[in-house]
Amino acid sequence: MTTVYLNGQLLPLEAANISVMDRGFLFGDGIYEVIPVFGGRCFRLDEHLDRLDYSLRETRIPQPHTRAQWLDIFSGLIDALQREQAAPDQMIYLQITRGPAPLREHRFPADMKPTVFAFSKALPPPNQQLPPAIACITCEDIRWSRCDIKSISLLANVLMTQDAMDAGGREAILIRDDQVLEGASSNVFIVLDGVLHTAPKDHRILAGITRDLIVDLCAEHGEKIRQQTVAAADLQRASEIWITSSTREMLPVTMLNGAPVGNGEIGPVFARLWQWYLGFRQRMNSPVA
Amino acid sequence: MTTVYLNGQLLPLEAANISVMDRGFLFGDGIYEVIPVFGGRCFRLDEHLDRLDYSLRETRIPQPHTRAQWLDIFSGLIDALQREQAAPDQMIYLQITRGPAPLREHRFPADMKPTVFAFSKALPPPNQQLPPAIACITCEDIRWSRCDIKSISLLANVLMTQDAMDAGGREAILIRDDQVLEGASSNVFIVLDGVLHTAPKDHRILAGITRDLIVDLCAEHGEKIRQQTVAAADLQRASEIWITSSTREMLPVTMLNGAPVGNGEIGPVFARLWQWYLGFRQRMNSPVA
Repeated sequence: MTTVYLNGQLLPLEAANISVMDRGFLFGDGIYEVIPVFGGRCFRLDEHLDRLDYSLRETRIPQPHTRAQWLDIFSGLIDALQREQAAPDQMIYLQITRGPAPLREHRFPADMKPTVFAFSKALPPPNQQLPPAIACITCEDIRWSRCDIKSISLLANVLMTQDAMDAGGREAILIRDDQVLEGASSNVFIVLDGVLHTAPKDHRILAGITRDLIVDLCAEHGEKIRQQTVAAADLQRASEIWITSSTREMLPVTMLNGAPVGNGEIGPVFARLWQWYLGFRQRMNSPVA
Repeated sequence: MTTVYLNGQLLPLEAANISVMDRGFLFGDGIYEVIPVFGGRCFRLDEHLDRLDYSLRETRIPQPHTRAQWLDIFSGLIDALQREQAAPDQMIYLQITRGPAPLREHRFPADMKPTVFAFSKALPPPNQQLPPAIACITCEDIRWSRCDIKSISLLANVLMTQDAMDAGGREAILIRDDQVLEGASSNVFIVLDGVLHTAPKDHRILAGITRDLIVDLCAEHGEKIRQQTVAAADLQRASEIWITSSTREMLPVTMLNGAPVGNGEIGPVFARLWQWYLGFRQRMNSPVA
């Protein structure tokens, strides 16, 4: 990532500056998306742009571009990175804020001119073996009650993630009202009594595109999955836990709060899903027929 | 406000830019303070700097300056504005973010170099008559559970404020678990059964310095005040409601959700406190003996 996009221009990262009066900087007043690019093609682009529309609508930030314009912006970034370092797999980060305003006041400015910032960075090629297992901690969910909006007001997520890192983990698994919801920047899957569970899509979670892909892969292959939350107390008897996100893909959690999950090994449900996920990735990365 | 402070320099606002990689812009990862300046002197400076320390400690952002250095920074801003427009009453806005990082990832960067941004702007002279009454709405509190941190991750506050404006009001009064807590950017006082109430200081509210001044003025003048929340249902029978903040000072709320508060006039408890507050302001604005 040395070339970034800012308000209509591709420019070097060092030259990409915004005003201190940008509401993204003053209020965390903006939203974002992360779109993986596999084999040079955007992963579930329509779903990501639908979610972008949703976040903009819910925060009442004007949509600054048509889908064709977004495609042009993404292509410019993908091509620039491809020239710099031959990266077929990338992730596009895209952020839209309510823009700069002459005064710092909470209410919307009279003339909103959203700030658009985006970059792409290289992703490693897909792991053909099982991915490395990680440790996690559980954490009381301190976020706001509109977690369905992909907002840049992320201080809660930052603090919970750092708590997990400090405890030797890689992700914080969030509990609200005694229910397991998701990770600080991932979705969570739990095998309980032999059945896969993940939280339903509502205002308590950010519905991940990879989460939805897993649900689709389950449907395609006849794997039972319940879209309902698991009680925090039941985590102790879960045989498998994993997290998913667009860029971390699927990661098995074999240690939780310092104790092994199940038998402490990567479980069979994860292994099955991983093969189906890899098949999906290979189809994405193969040349268009 | 045409001269601002950014990372060690006084410079024109137009030249005050930050990197798109600043964590304030990417994550709302920062905190702020607002310090009124009355008659050229900072209002309860130690209390504001104590609260700044608290916000920094709770977010684990390093304190970048000593109190003497802060005073120098504030003096520079106050003097610059005084030269520009002869403004004895001002408000200093001060924001500290976790700084820029080479990568966008939630966890803290290895080397944190906080970004410090501040400006001062002129405040109107104190209203010698009663201040204008305002209308408010109530609103379900959608914020995170650490409202005691003065964080810049303010999207919830922005959205609730705009909802109030759209309804013809000036502030959203926030309800959580059926209790009245505070405004989207103010504290709330309620006269119920003849006794003044305001929410206690805990993680559900941002303890305002002006809120504390009101509590002190009550103690000084023998006005009874209960630091406990009022049930949302009891707002209907409140005889007075008002909001306070460092910059809006004290504003009486005479309409709530489209219905008059009490008899729809500014009440006697407000009027008493306003006189005591004005006395305090006059002492602040009078030359040092």
